[in-house]
Amino acid sequence: LTCCAFQLNAADPLPSWNESAAKQNIIQFVEKVTSKDSPDYVPPEHRIATFDNDGTLWTEKPQYFQVFFAIDRVKALAPQHPEWKTEEPFASILKGDYKTAFAGGEAAVLKLVVATHTGMTTTEFEKIVNEWSKTARHPKTGRLFTQMVYQPMLELLAYMRSKGFKTFIVSGGGIEFMRPWTERVYGIPPQQVVGSSVKTKFEMREDGPVLIRLPEINFIDDKAGKPVGINSHIGQRPIAAFGNSDGDIQMLEWATGASGARFALLVHHTDAKREYAYNVGAVQALKDASEKGWTVVNMKDDWKVIYPPLKK
Amino acid sequence: LTCCAFQLNAADPLPSWNESAAKQNIIQFVEKVTSKDSPDYVPPEHRIATFDNDGTLWTEKPQYFQVFFAIDRVKALAPQHPEWKTEEPFASILKGDYKTAFAGGEAAVLKLVVATHTGMTTTEFEKIVNEWSKTARHPKTGRLFTQMVYQPMLELLAYMRSKGFKTFIVSGGGIEFMRPWTERVYGIPPQQVVGSSVKTKFEMREDGPVLIRLPEINFIDDKAGKPVGINSHIGQRPIAAFGNSDGDIQMLEWATGASGARFALLVHHTDAKREYAYNVGAVQALKDASEKGWTVVNMKDDWKVIYPPLKK
Ligand SMILES: [Ca+2]
Ligand SMILES: [Ca+2]
Repeated sequence: LTCCAFQLNAADPLPSWNESAAKQNIIQFVEKVTSKDSPDYVPPEHRIATFDNDGTLWTEKPQYFQVFFAIDRVKALAPQHPEWKTEEPFASILKGDYKTAFAGGEAAVLKLVVATHTGMTTTEFEKIVNEWSKTARHPKTGRLFTQMVYQPMLELLAYMRSKGFKTFIVSGGGIEFMRPWTERVYGIPPQQVVGSSVKTKFEMREDGPVLIRLPEINFIDDKAGKPVGINSHIGQRPIAAFGNSDGDIQMLEWATGASGARFALLVHHTDAKREYAYNVGAVQALKDASEKGWTVVNMKDDWKVIYPPLKK
Repeated sequence: LTCCAFQLNAADPLPSWNESAAKQNIIQFVEKVTSKDSPDYVPPEHRIATFDNDGTLWTEKPQYFQVFFAIDRVKALAPQHPEWKTEEPFASILKGDYKTAFAGGEAAVLKLVVATHTGMTTTEFEKIVNEWSKTARHPKTGRLFTQMVYQPMLELLAYMRSKGFKTFIVSGGGIEFMRPWTERVYGIPPQQVVGSSVKTKFEMREDGPVLIRLPEINFIDDKAGKPVGINSHIGQRPIAAFGNSDGDIQMLEWATGASGARFALLVHHTDAKREYAYNVGAVQALKDASEKGWTVVNMKDDWKVIYPPLKK
């Protein structure tokens, strides 16, 4: 089930990247901040790199994978909720009519989150996510969602770690939706995952202490929230940041807006054949990238492969 | 100025601890979770240890050191605030009458926090704390506050790290009050510090992006908040936790209330001559310790020295 482990190739640490500017920019940056005699040298404790998740480390189409998770939970929980047969957004979700389900906008999403992501203990939720991550499959490719991660980005994570970087996820997705599988899939441990969250409450039960996931948003780790989440969890400014959309602009500004060598990269989804091609939600970020000199990955041209090979 | 670096002694990793039960309990626990052939073996990625700060890693008397910091800030900022001459709690603080100053209870403390800890950028606050930490001295010993850390606990931190543990601070104190000096003093990097916090806000200024510290409490990392903070920042349950007061009970319950080998320790302040002797604020925790088998350090008997030697 573990799709993605691979050996770092010392001769070419980024073998799935074509020999284009994106790859050169990455390697030049890493070399200059890690070479002891470089004027841009950064000691290891400050080599902090932050990565958006959806659309940067794994695919985010036809919709965020966490939405598939929520839908799967609605289906699994429906027998305990006969009232959902007539209550939106659940009724439409159970009919497979997602357009109607999400016509309710933010209120519908919040209702869905509360029903599927809260009310249980953190341990119970971890178990639910873990099981889902090992069985749920993408509707188009049939791969496990955790096999829809980008092979070139897995290489990049491993390469940067081999050069003394600490790699963090900083995602608008749920922090506890990611943590159960990020170490296995990306090599990123739970304490290096930053994301959106609900409030939790400590409770002593007869069989031991628990944390209950409450039906209340605690933090939204998106847009201007990303530097806030970074500051809260990491406590220092990244020197490199990787994203794909307008939700990452502030994170990339935060990472690059200080003295010393800095690096920002946007993954641009240009590959309709091997993945998806779209600018929606990334128009401003792409404009900023060209104005500010952020590196833009053109998936179609810069990446030899998109997904990791599947084990037989 | 760096008081506290020292070499780990392989023959005796805890040389400042007397050969009593506390030391034996610590070493037995560490051995059993790190020996590959032990039934209690824990892989390195799950060797998480959390440490309270005030009264556990450094002295907390005659009052929390962060209160001294706030008082020093009031004095430094007073020239810009002529209105403080008549406004409480500032008026009494400026007169050195702390009893009257804090008679206002929580409201007075909040006013003090807002006036001294908010309104500036995170970078500015870091600089203020950093400078204070290198100059401010304890009223009784004349040591820098950062030299009022416990030598036996420094040894314990280094010993556990040498055995593959990740050491975290989980304190009721301000997260950004600790981060500027915890790496230098304890060897604990910013991303491994959990604490109380104010809200922050991202802002693009002409000379670059900043995070502003807002006059609004974000999180109180104390009592039942400690497991919440641990879950938010670390994302997994510690297998060992160290505290000194009732504010640590839930953290110690959280660390010990699951299967597998677990360890909890309370520092009991019993040494009026070399430090302070008090039970106030720790009565319930000491009761719980004796009922639940948590290790209690009797500072007077268990520790050969309290503070690190000062460099000449
Ligand atoms: Ca994204
Ligand atoms: Ca304490």
